[in-house]
Amino acid sequence: MSTTTQPEGTLAPHRASTRGLAPSAPTPPWPAAPDTAGLVDVMALGRLLDGRWWQERRRARDLALDPAMQKVEGLPVAEHRERVLEQCRALARRRQVHRAFPAALGGSDDPGGNLASFEELAVLDPSLQIKAGVQWGLFGAAVLHLGSAEHHARLLPGILDLSVPGCFAMTEVGHGSDVASLATTATYDPAAEEFVLHTPVAAARKEYLGNAAEHGRAAVVFAQLITQGVNHGVHAFYVPVRAENGDGRLEFLPGVSGRDDGLKGGLNGVDNGQLWFDHVRVPRTNLLNRYGDVAEDGTYSSLIASPGRRFFTMLGTLVQGRVSLSGAAVSATKMALAIAVRYGLERRQFTGADEHSEVVLLDYQQHQRRLLPLLARAYAAAFAHHDLLDRFHGVFSGEHDTDEDRQDLETLAAVAKPLTTWLALEALQEAREACGGAGFMAENRLVGLRQDMDVYVTFEGDNNVLLQLVGKRLLTDYGREMAKVDIAGAARWVAARAADMTLHRTPLRRAAQSVRDTGSRARSAGHLRAAETQRELLEDRVEAMVAEIATALRPARKAGAEEAAALFNAHQHELIEAARAHGELLQWEAFTGALARVKDPSTREVLTTLRDLFGLTLIEKNLAWYLMNGRLSAQRARTVTSYVDRLLVRLRPHAADLVAAFGYTPGHLRATIASGVEAERQAEARAHFRRLRASGQEPINEKVLHASQQRSGLAAPAD
Amino acid sequence: MSTTTQPEGTLAPHRASTRGLAPSAPTPPWPAAPDTAGLVDVMALGRLLDGRWWQERRRARDLALDPAMQKVEGLPVAEHRERVLEQCRALARRRQVHRAFPAALGGSDDPGGNLASFEELAVLDPSLQIKAGVQWGLFGAAVLHLGSAEHHARLLPGILDLSVPGCFAMTEVGHGSDVASLATTATYDPAAEEFVLHTPVAAARKEYLGNAAEHGRAAVVFAQLITQGVNHGVHAFYVPVRAENGDGRLEFLPGVSGRDDGLKGGLNGVDNGQLWFDHVRVPRTNLLNRYGDVAEDGTYSSLIASPGRRFFTMLGTLVQGRVSLSGAAVSATKMALAIAVRYGLERRQFTGADEHSEVVLLDYQQHQRRLLPLLARAYAAAFAHHDLLDRFHGVFSGEHDTDEDRQDLETLAAVAKPLTTWLALEALQEAREACGGAGFMAENRLVGLRQDMDVYVTFEGDNNVLLQLVGKRLLTDYGREMAKVDIAGAARWVAARAADMTLHRTPLRRAAQSVRDTGSRARSAGHLRAAETQRELLEDRVEAMVAEIATALRPARKAGAEEAAALFNAHQHELIEAARAHGELLQWEAFTGALARVKDPSTREVLTTLRDLFGLTLIEKNLAWYLMNGRLSAQRARTVTSYVDRLLVRLRPHAADLVAAFGYTPGHLRATIASGVEAERQAEARAHFRRLRASGQEPINEKVLHASQQRSGLAAPAD
Repeated sequence: MSTTTQPEGTLAPHRASTRGLAPSAPTPPWPAAPDTAGLVDVMALGRLLDGRWWQERRRARDLALDPAMQKVEGLPVAEHRERVLEQCRALARRRQVHRAFPAALGGSDDPGGNLASFEELAVLDPSLQIKAGVQWGLFGAAVLHLGSAEHHARLLPGILDLSVPGCFAMTEVGHGSDVASLATTATYDPAAEEFVLHTPVAAARKEYLGNAAEHGRAAVVFAQLITQGVNHGVHAFYVPVRAENGDGRLEFLPGVSGRDDGLKGGLNGVDNGQLWFDHVRVPRTNLLNRYGDVAEDGTYSSLIASPGRRFFTMLGTLVQGRVSLSGAAVSATKMALAIAVRYGLERRQFTGADEHSEVVLLDYQQHQRRLLPLLARAYAAAFAHHDLLDRFHGVFSGEHDTDEDRQDLETLAAVAKPLTTWLALEALQEAREACGGAGFMAENRLVGLRQDMDVYVTFEGDNNVLLQLVGKRLLTDYGREMAKVDIAGAARWVAARAADMTLHRTPLRRAAQSVRDTGSRARSAGHLRAAETQRELLEDRVEAMVAEIATALRPARKAGAEEAAALFNAHQHELIEAARAHGELLQWEAFTGALARVKDPSTREVLTTLRDLFGLTLIEKNLAWYLMNGRLSAQRARTVTSYVDRLLVRLRPHAADLVAAFGYTPGHLRATIASGVEAERQAEARAHFRRLRASGQEPINEKVLHASQQRSGLAAPAD
Repeated sequence: MSTTTQPEGTLAPHRASTRGLAPSAPTPPWPAAPDTAGLVDVMALGRLLDGRWWQERRRARDLALDPAMQKVEGLPVAEHRERVLEQCRALARRRQVHRAFPAALGGSDDPGGNLASFEELAVLDPSLQIKAGVQWGLFGAAVLHLGSAEHHARLLPGILDLSVPGCFAMTEVGHGSDVASLATTATYDPAAEEFVLHTPVAAARKEYLGNAAEHGRAAVVFAQLITQGVNHGVHAFYVPVRAENGDGRLEFLPGVSGRDDGLKGGLNGVDNGQLWFDHVRVPRTNLLNRYGDVAEDGTYSSLIASPGRRFFTMLGTLVQGRVSLSGAAVSATKMALAIAVRYGLERRQFTGADEHSEVVLLDYQQHQRRLLPLLARAYAAAFAHHDLLDRFHGVFSGEHDTDEDRQDLETLAAVAKPLTTWLALEALQEAREACGGAGFMAENRLVGLRQDMDVYVTFEGDNNVLLQLVGKRLLTDYGREMAKVDIAGAARWVAARAADMTLHRTPLRRAAQSVRDTGSRARSAGHLRAAETQRELLEDRVEAMVAEIATALRPARKAGAEEAAALFNAHQHELIEAARAHGELLQWEAFTGALARVKDPSTREVLTTLRDLFGLTLIEKNLAWYLMNGRLSAQRARTVTSYVDRLLVRLRPHAADLVAAFGYTPGHLRATIASGVEAERQAEARAHFRRLRASGQEPINEKVLHASQQRSGLAAPAD
């Protein structure tokens, strides 16, 4: 019995990592690579997947090869917190987290490269990612974007080198996604030239703040700015919260209190907690005053006159949280699929046609159905994320920084983050189930990653709230479009809409009709594979859904507030679904756009098949809509699923290459089942049974005995 | 600031439990009950939901009111294991787990009551449930069902009183759901009159066994029985594995080895591990010989001549695992929804039509969409489970114990467990997200429950494997039906099938047609609410899917093994979906059957609406199928979603009562957010702002100031 294939011991997070430090470039997946058609240029595809900041991305990912930077599953909360703090210090020492900050302060003015690098920290430990995100992406970024040069010079050095760990104190117990309703107040006292921070009620306590439970020395606190009897809305204040006491231990400063949030569903390396303030005073100059200032005498001034626009401009500077969480979710999705596909290519279960050989899991249609569409979605999400990151870099580098650019960026981030974070949870769960009991073992990482990623779907903006925002934006854009149309045009549009309900107006429809005439499934499948057909179906659905909601909401203009709110609420679900459809279309467009950048023809062909799988599973998911709205005939619709089935078979031989291109080696994944042990075990078992058969010592199977007795005329039982 | 509303401290699992021990009967949910229409007789509905063994169920549930029997979230693994072992001892002392065993041994020959009681242990701690399930439901049940009277007398007393904690050693590293392929051997040695248990390869190590890592003293080991050179297939053997050494510490017996599985995604109070055997000898009489025995000279004998039937008969006796896990999943689903609905009825977010008052979460359409269909599914699953449990009791009490009864029971369990365990995960996740950041805190229990329930979808039979089994049974039954039909009948059937593809053959279709003619959505909705319409749509789909797969598989009869396997595989996904549809139909039937048992007319009306929501969301989910197969016209299909929307609005006022009837009080749920703290906090905040407005000290909002400046002719910024 080989003992190397079955290491002993209770907790063994380091096991897989000792299998050698893998290089950062994508390589054929692992020593005993299973069958692959070899048509994919894994290196080139890996480069494409890692995008514009591929070097930053790989460098960050390779930090995970250092055992000191890895997550240890199952550490007690206190130890996990300390470990992650120490890992953050290591990041600061390596200047790994300074890239977005000004060169003058040791950064490199590279917002895009910074996020690309940050997104890969999920490979090390999502707790480390979030703790780093709190310190440099939220606390530090708030000082950078909402503060002035004086704040940068005074506050950023301590933030960058982590001598001042800090909190981003926005969310309150009573208000999460609804930031405008925060109840903490910052009242200006002109006599002392100080702001008085105060928590009037328990619902106003700051909640779920990273660094609040233990390590935070300061906080950027969002509060209603009140001066001269006027509330100017939510502004950000720099507030020291803890300092060392005589024993060198951190203690709350006078007037500041807190509570430890304790154990969470995941991310337990982050010390989340509450903070609240009892008339805590800070100097006037601690107001982060880029978008609103208070003079010594208490006079308020702002570059942005409208309080509403000012609020959204301030919040808009913090969009990087959503952008980067979306990217982190893509990383986690890729890890989940790399683990499950590799295991699915090794693990065998139940004999097939040949009774001496069991079937590889990924040869089962159901297993392909479970994993390959998720693989297509991972690619689509990765390519869409590149577009988002490009746009983010454009705005924050100042290259493309108009109001419209910022609004577009915010809308794109608001639709990207829900789709990718939900995808990550879905992929992690399906991967865990596809790996059976092994998937449930902490050493195989899927359960730990899922626990950590869980909260990504509700923090930095609840996913449903974000999609509703996007839906509203779609309605507004649609209204603008409609406003441009002259009256005759509007009439034409209405007539077209009416026809739409019963007739089919797209070229597609004509194709469908001809299919129905000939009854050929193969021909229709060819049409569905055409990129223009997929685009038209996806676009058409978004447009028609938005138009339908807009039409339904029209009476709201003339209705009272209550009636209008009720009408809007009656279409909330549809609106959220329209936003989701919009996001999926963007992903499809990004995937299609990426195909053009693939030089190798056979790689492009495989990738085009994967894109088709993405497009057709989207259409399959919403098939009822296409049928009800006359976009597909029943006969044509029936071809969608059978075509998806064919794509699965076509992609199966490339599954190993498609996950190898993610660039996560066994050293990055640190999942025992993705390290080749299953194949070793099977080889041992096969050799044993071969030897046994050859030895003549193999016992006869009772069934075989019965059969031979039957043949020889002896009585044998019926089955 | 009230401090009672915000208890301090890091981990506070006992917080909610100190709010008083709730009585076992369902009561109006909690002190500050939100608006409820009061049309539901909560007490009577609770009695119906708790079913035939309601007293056993409630008694078990109330054990959760004892702090010593509760899960403490976040305990280190070692402490959690010790705590759960101690809790198991408490269960044994209370004879809580003996109900299924013979009266002669201290049990009460009550298999149904035993499972009802067992299912509620998830309320205490799912680890306790599983540890108890391993000891009495698997290890003990194997001795009971596979052993003879001699085994009962010799072995059961130590199992019942937990002086012999044991393992159920079936699964191996290499084989989980495929039990027939186990590789552990038990070879009979007539000279010594002993069996020699042996693990020939690493893949044959017994894996994921509860009690294996620490506490197990014995195991029921499943191994290939070999005697006189013949392998008689998998049989069960009683094997001592650990005994106390000189220091009183448990140590492996000679030849036995093991490995601790270490940290898992959940259930960390259970000490799962591996066991393997190096020529371990046990007396011949340790073969559990009810279905197969070996005489002293090595002659094999069995009451069941066919090895295949014998194998399935032996496995069939262990069906209670699946039945009870399915019931446990229903309990967890109910807990998840009780927590999320209660919070959704208190928590408010974003102002609505009235700008001084925020909207209750459950008044948002999307929130209703997220939770209320799950509530309908929880009811359907609960009622279906009662039917399953009745049938289980019939078989195992001997009241209805034919071969056919057993086969039906196994098929029902195989379809119930996948549906309910996936439902539990879906409900727990949606509940967690619907509670936002609070849902992610361990003190609110949703994340911990989800982590524990995760493995229920792959253990005791992987859900996909089970559904495939059910699908095969559907095909077999269909084949039998077809065989009965004479040739003329077959021809008619084929003709009907052909017509079916393009035409509509049900009365429903005529109704749809008349709707299309009048164009009235309201009228069509009335039809969809008719129980016969829902039943016909759901039945029709199952039948048509099975028939379609059977037709597609017909060529397999004449094909070679490889071709036949490929053809079957090409329809695997459809077959699994057909099995799922069958299970959903059973749930719908059970829900509809339960309505007749509701005496109070207004309760029945509310419950009928909930059943309609269940039926229509099923139809909505599969709308594309109904459209493609001509069961619904496009126009009629469009009414389904709008009708679902109306049902949500109609059910909203009963949400509090519908979860109250589950009978889980705050003392059972132990979730801070389901204990009324949110309402207290809001009351405090409202009172504060009311006082502030009354005092004349409230600052003016800048927006209001601008507006008044505009009115008085002063310059004000445009928004």
